[in-house]
Amino acid sequence: MTGTNTTDFDVHPAIDRLWREIENREDELNQLIANLVWYQSVLGSEADVQHFVAGHLQLSGLETDVWDIEESLKELPESGDSGVPFEGRPNVAGIQRGAGGGRSLIVNGHVDVVSPEPLDNWTYDPWAAEVVENRMYGRGALDMKAGVAINLMLPRWLRDVGIQTRGDIVIQSVIEEECTGNGALDMSRRYQADAAIITEPTGGSFTQAHVGVMWFKIRVKGRSAHAAVAPTGVNAISKMVPIIRALEDLDRELNEGSHPSFEGIDHPINLNIGVMSSGDWPSTVPGMAELDCRVSFYPGKTVEEMRSEIEQAVRHASQTDNWLQENPPEVVYHGFQSGGSTVSMDEPHVQLLGSWHQYLNGSAMAPRSGTGTNDMRYFNFAGIPCGCYGPGGAGPHAADEYLDLSTVVPTAKVLAAFMLDWCGIVDE
Amino acid sequence: MTGTNTTDFDVHPAIDRLWREIENREDELNQLIANLVWYQSVLGSEADVQHFVAGHLQLSGLETDVWDIEESLKELPESGDSGVPFEGRPNVAGIQRGAGGGRSLIVNGHVDVVSPEPLDNWTYDPWAAEVVENRMYGRGALDMKAGVAINLMLPRWLRDVGIQTRGDIVIQSVIEEECTGNGALDMSRRYQADAAIITEPTGGSFTQAHVGVMWFKIRVKGRSAHAAVAPTGVNAISKMVPIIRALEDLDRELNEGSHPSFEGIDHPINLNIGVMSSGDWPSTVPGMAELDCRVSFYPGKTVEEMRSEIEQAVRHASQTDNWLQENPPEVVYHGFQSGGSTVSMDEPHVQLLGSWHQYLNGSAMAPRSGTGTNDMRYFNFAGIPCGCYGPGGAGPHAADEYLDLSTVVPTAKVLAAFMLDWCGIVDE
Repeated sequence: MTGTNTTDFDVHPAIDRLWREIENREDELNQLIANLVWYQSVLGSEADVQHFVAGHLQLSGLETDVWDIEESLKELPESGDSGVPFEGRPNVAGIQRGAGGGRSLIVNGHVDVVSPEPLDNWTYDPWAAEVVENRMYGRGALDMKAGVAINLMLPRWLRDVGIQTRGDIVIQSVIEEECTGNGALDMSRRYQADAAIITEPTGGSFTQAHVGVMWFKIRVKGRSAHAAVAPTGVNAISKMVPIIRALEDLDRELNEGSHPSFEGIDHPINLNIGVMSSGDWPSTVPGMAELDCRVSFYPGKTVEEMRSEIEQAVRHASQTDNWLQENPPEVVYHGFQSGGSTVSMDEPHVQLLGSWHQYLNGSAMAPRSGTGTNDMRYFNFAGIPCGCYGPGGAGPHAADEYLDLSTVVPTAKVLAAFMLDWCGIVDE
Repeated sequence: MTGTNTTDFDVHPAIDRLWREIENREDELNQLIANLVWYQSVLGSEADVQHFVAGHLQLSGLETDVWDIEESLKELPESGDSGVPFEGRPNVAGIQRGAGGGRSLIVNGHVDVVSPEPLDNWTYDPWAAEVVENRMYGRGALDMKAGVAINLMLPRWLRDVGIQTRGDIVIQSVIEEECTGNGALDMSRRYQADAAIITEPTGGSFTQAHVGVMWFKIRVKGRSAHAAVAPTGVNAISKMVPIIRALEDLDRELNEGSHPSFEGIDHPINLNIGVMSSGDWPSTVPGMAELDCRVSFYPGKTVEEMRSEIEQAVRHASQTDNWLQENPPEVVYHGFQSGGSTVSMDEPHVQLLGSWHQYLNGSAMAPRSGTGTNDMRYFNFAGIPCGCYGPGGAGPHAADEYLDLSTVVPTAKVLAAFMLDWCGIVDE
């Protein structure tokens, strides 16, 4: 079937064989997800898991491509700077060459995970991948070691059941999805394809749109002094309070706007004050305070426009305080500096994915607009239509993140059928 | 002279010899101060400078006593817990035995210094002890490597000019003055004397009273979540704001009280919010925020009373917010947990010190009430009358801390004459 929405059609015997293989190897897939969770692949620590990924692709018989991103990438528009050099933290791709005459497909995932801190909030060890009542708990179990594991198993299953596709399949494993998108930006410049899919944990819906995201720090200067003569100093923590309040206000204002893809979503735009640090000694008046924030904005709005609104809010808040007027807070940009993107639900590969979802689940694949960013933007910017489709669970970036294991095989079956249908099957 | 206030009397020839020695060796004294500043002896890094101090005392011919404080000290009243084990960070004492028949004296100083962060605020390298226009800049140059250097040189000069005292002199070098007072608490239990003096940088005044100081942390819980769904989380930074405001209010209220020793001092009591830390990722709603604070209180008020006021203010602030009511902030005590102390200006050794100050400076030694704490309390608690007298400068605990080098020799001369007069001179 191609782009139809019916459930009344014959399934190619190769697809049926692949489905049986996937069902029979559920334990192996779950084991692979756990293996990936055990790698504590936070920013800067992605090397080990990427070498595991490359090894797995190679064992499946794919051409593997492992390389460090060049530092000059950070000068490109829509790139970011995580503060960590690229050396020794490679991107990885595996290429399954098709027989020719089919459409090519990129299947992408990221191996980096956010920190599990504060650990006290976890009921489970965030790195143990413990399974309780068919939920696998762990940092990255959902976001997105499960997707990466499916991506790795797709070519392995194909090989083991002896199916060859007509179009090329490129399995991609990137770094820095959680902080800059640099891994995917680099991939989108290195590999071309007729379509791309990212197996982010969408719970069976399809990400057709997502916001842009920008990170920024705000630094407020104080004047340090011994606490015994505190009035001779200026407390940077106290001076930060009106800035915090101004950012909370801006968060409310930003949600007064709207975008067709985000209608019906409660509070789609989020300005998050994620980190505050100030001072290093209880008996010293802190001479500096810093916030580290994340703000989102609708597709179509530029990074430059968003920066201007942030700076205006900070300037406005500073006008209420003499010290802040004379010592204007500094706004510094780092990490994500990239706009949102959309992909049409009418794109042929989205239609096809939706058909297989409908066939296997008995219900339509729901479009979803992400209030967070994800790597799909770089493929859309490069003209490779891309959205996200993956398994379900709860708590990405939160304590007790878990993957709903009952969603993994159904998701893998939809993706496998879509992949064969999109790329074309070489008949035996 | 003993306890008189006249300047019309004969100076003992030994004192006069000692003064000439001090004047002639000014360069050596300044060099010793610089040597001490070069040791970056922040909390946990006191070992090297203490071994230098012990070596210097030994070279002067004193019995030296170098020992690690026992961990059980932290269970005593008025002790604190810095979080750093005592092992390998010794207290040091040097004992100059007298010939007998005189009064004994403890001369005390601390080697620990507070962090120089943020370094950006410094014009000078905080560890270089650079001298510009007769000011020595550096962390600890004033507070109190200068005092420690004077303490070390006092017995060295005595030896070199061949003067023996009747009473014992105990030179003490302690750790943790800046965070707990544990070093001095331990000293006050190990050595007895008829009087004690601490060469803290008083600029030629005498510290007759000082506040009690207590450190405390306040922890506010939030609920972490991905920033894309921030409203499902609770931002601990935002929840900390009313607590910050409540502490600022309490600071004002505490200054509505009064104490006879602190009349005429502007804002003698200071509740300082010294540190705030929260979150570790811009795209995650922070699940915990922590303040680290210092509050002072008048002599006579107990640690328990102060704790109760802090806890009441936090409880009160929490009542304005449902989340804080259901998740009450936690107050945790660490570091300084000790009351203030006073010493009478009529104490014989204070009178005698004042007489020599008057003789050499031509003006009365001004009493001073410290709005910060210092180690004198433990000697007063132990029945050894103690206050502080030392050189001058500016910016203790602040950027560009400096020692006014013109005050060092005059201070050393007062202390040297007082010491000989107090302990008694063995005539040749």
